[in-house]
Amino acid sequence: MPNTAAPVVVIAPDSFKGSLSAEQVAHAIATGVRRVWHAADIRMRPLADGGEGTLDALLTRGGRRVRVHVRNAAGEPFEAASGVLDDRTSIVESAEIVGLTDAAGMRVPIERRSTLGLGDAIRAHLDQGARRILIALGGSSTNDGGAGLLSALGMRLLDEDGVPLPPTPDSLDRLAGIDASGIDARLRQCELVAMTDVDNPLCGPHGATAMFGPQKGAKPAQIATLDRTLSHFADLVEAALGKRVRDLPGAGAAGGLGFALHALGATFEPGAEIVAAEVGLDAALEGADWLITGEGRSDEQTLRGKTPFVACSHARKAGIPATLLSGGIVPDALPALGAHFSGCFSPIPGPMTLDAAIAGAETLLADGAEQLARLFDAARGVARLETRA
Amino acid sequence: MPNTAAPVVVIAPDSFKGSLSAEQVAHAIATGVRRVWHAADIRMRPLADGGEGTLDALLTRGGRRVRVHVRNAAGEPFEAASGVLDDRTSIVESAEIVGLTDAAGMRVPIERRSTLGLGDAIRAHLDQGARRILIALGGSSTNDGGAGLLSALGMRLLDEDGVPLPPTPDSLDRLAGIDASGIDARLRQCELVAMTDVDNPLCGPHGATAMFGPQKGAKPAQIATLDRTLSHFADLVEAALGKRVRDLPGAGAAGGLGFALHALGATFEPGAEIVAAEVGLDAALEGADWLITGEGRSDEQTLRGKTPFVACSHARKAGIPATLLSGGIVPDALPALGAHFSGCFSPIPGPMTLDAAIAGAETLLADGAEQLARLFDAARGVARLETRA
Repeated sequence: MPNTAAPVVVIAPDSFKGSLSAEQVAHAIATGVRRVWHAADIRMRPLADGGEGTLDALLTRGGRRVRVHVRNAAGEPFEAASGVLDDRTSIVESAEIVGLTDAAGMRVPIERRSTLGLGDAIRAHLDQGARRILIALGGSSTNDGGAGLLSALGMRLLDEDGVPLPPTPDSLDRLAGIDASGIDARLRQCELVAMTDVDNPLCGPHGATAMFGPQKGAKPAQIATLDRTLSHFADLVEAALGKRVRDLPGAGAAGGLGFALHALGATFEPGAEIVAAEVGLDAALEGADWLITGEGRSDEQTLRGKTPFVACSHARKAGIPATLLSGGIVPDALPALGAHFSGCFSPIPGPMTLDAAIAGAETLLADGAEQLARLFDAARGVARLETRA
Repeated sequence: MPNTAAPVVVIAPDSFKGSLSAEQVAHAIATGVRRVWHAADIRMRPLADGGEGTLDALLTRGGRRVRVHVRNAAGEPFEAASGVLDDRTSIVESAEIVGLTDAAGMRVPIERRSTLGLGDAIRAHLDQGARRILIALGGSSTNDGGAGLLSALGMRLLDEDGVPLPPTPDSLDRLAGIDASGIDARLRQCELVAMTDVDNPLCGPHGATAMFGPQKGAKPAQIATLDRTLSHFADLVEAALGKRVRDLPGAGAAGGLGFALHALGATFEPGAEIVAAEVGLDAALEGADWLITGEGRSDEQTLRGKTPFVACSHARKAGIPATLLSGGIVPDALPALGAHFSGCFSPIPGPMTLDAAIAGAETLLADGAEQLARLFDAARGVARLETRA
């Protein structure tokens, strides 16, 4: 029997990458919490940060999953998952279309990958009447400066003979002219919202290629070439559109897809904040007693706008304690994390390998959340006794 | 800043075997708790269960450590640590005198080890005027049925020619007669208290040799012989003293040392209960808000009278929640443990090897305890707000 009445608990984790979706994490945590308070009012708000899992998180609260005809990073047609949140708002996730984990798209090297598929998806949603398209930028395998997206939306990339070029890095160094006249006019009536935590510019030592190229398979010897190609591409796009956007924060997100979206006038917002707003995190926090959040692995980066930190900030603004339950927490980060969260925990119950932790993740999470709830219940009970006395 | 006023926290762990003493564990936990509430009223009561560390735990609250001249399990003289708690009470720890971790005593095989040293220690305390001697039985390397202890206290073990025999298993099968007339008369005025959780009888399939012989190095082929020797020894001791004690609970503790202590009229009590009583756990719990206990590794055995369970039971009787913070918790045991403790936790912050956990134990414990305190503080704060509203 619990010591205290069933509380209102908001469960708002990110996914545990490589292991569980945010929804699975939330369900596992809820299982543990319910073992302590059967009647707990549990409000699940799986979150995401604009990377892989963002579409899933946004669709847990409504809307519908649709399939759109797109091209993968290698230019091959396939049907990708995409989402319609309401009459006017759609969601397109880069990781679903040109994802780092998509074996088909990854078969070609980075210099031959493009974001054509993202343009395809945006066009498909425009066809459906979308007036606001959220674009989750994280988890892409491309480094084309968004040339594919712009191309799929009607921008023509031409060589010095006026012959159209494919929108891939290995062709763009031959780019001699741009014809922007054919860009889909419906974009003027549609708000594009880029979801990213990345602030980097398009080019240079902090640009897309230098910072994120290697994790996408760019070899050290390629970095300078790829970066120069993006710079050359940007010169011509900026000249054609009459604005300079390559140094705006986020232009370097998703291999320069951010640059293309800036060129189209998109607004940029932190992914976790948009998801929190879309799933109604603040409304869920009204009258709540406790928020539990988490992610696969927490470290000091967590405090730089990662999902659990965004969830924690919203909870604290509402005067509600936020506890972190992550797959693992880097020990050195505990002091910094501890200053924000009301306890930072891992569900790992003892020395254990990462593989074992991943294999048993759901059970470990439910058991771990149960223990947190037991302590929360006990401490709440103690305080009630004290206040009564 | 904490949300709630500094609480009264009782910290009463066992040692983390192979890593930290109970006192070190308590200090590490206190460090973490104080990071949340600088002014916390922390009452440290390191505990033990009658095994290794019992002497240390009993001496943290007073008394003095003394050195006594004894023999190790191999019969070689050395100075062992022992304790005087007050004018009348002494403490003798088997693990300090014939311990499994004592390389010198372990140099001879099990059939040549004896508990002579425990008799030596008891005599030394009788010399100092002790009227009550606590004997911690855990962690011994011997399997002599307490023949050494009885021998050192004046019982003569004779072969068929009336020649004295050494009190080791390899001699006791030649035992033909016992002369108990020389047993130290002061024992009649002294209460002997055996501290053990072991309920096993001296002989048979649940006896000392079958159950605990292998972990002391008895080979499978030796088990039957060693068991028969203890039975033969018991026949003669029981005949000489006119009482049968071999089947009393605990006769099989410490390789049959329990049998010898039963023969001397000792009382048997769970080690953890005696330590809890001696260090004043109940007094510490008066007016307390929270108890934190723990051990190196918790499993379902923990609920069978291990130290953290005893600490938890005392806390619950006083209406105070008890939280378990152990080096590791066997996942399968969580449901059973969770029904007793207000949360069962490991300070392990993520996938990690046992070696890494042991190497960083103090830091991990302080960090882990801090997180528990943060959650406790937050939940207490929530309840206060609710009650006020």
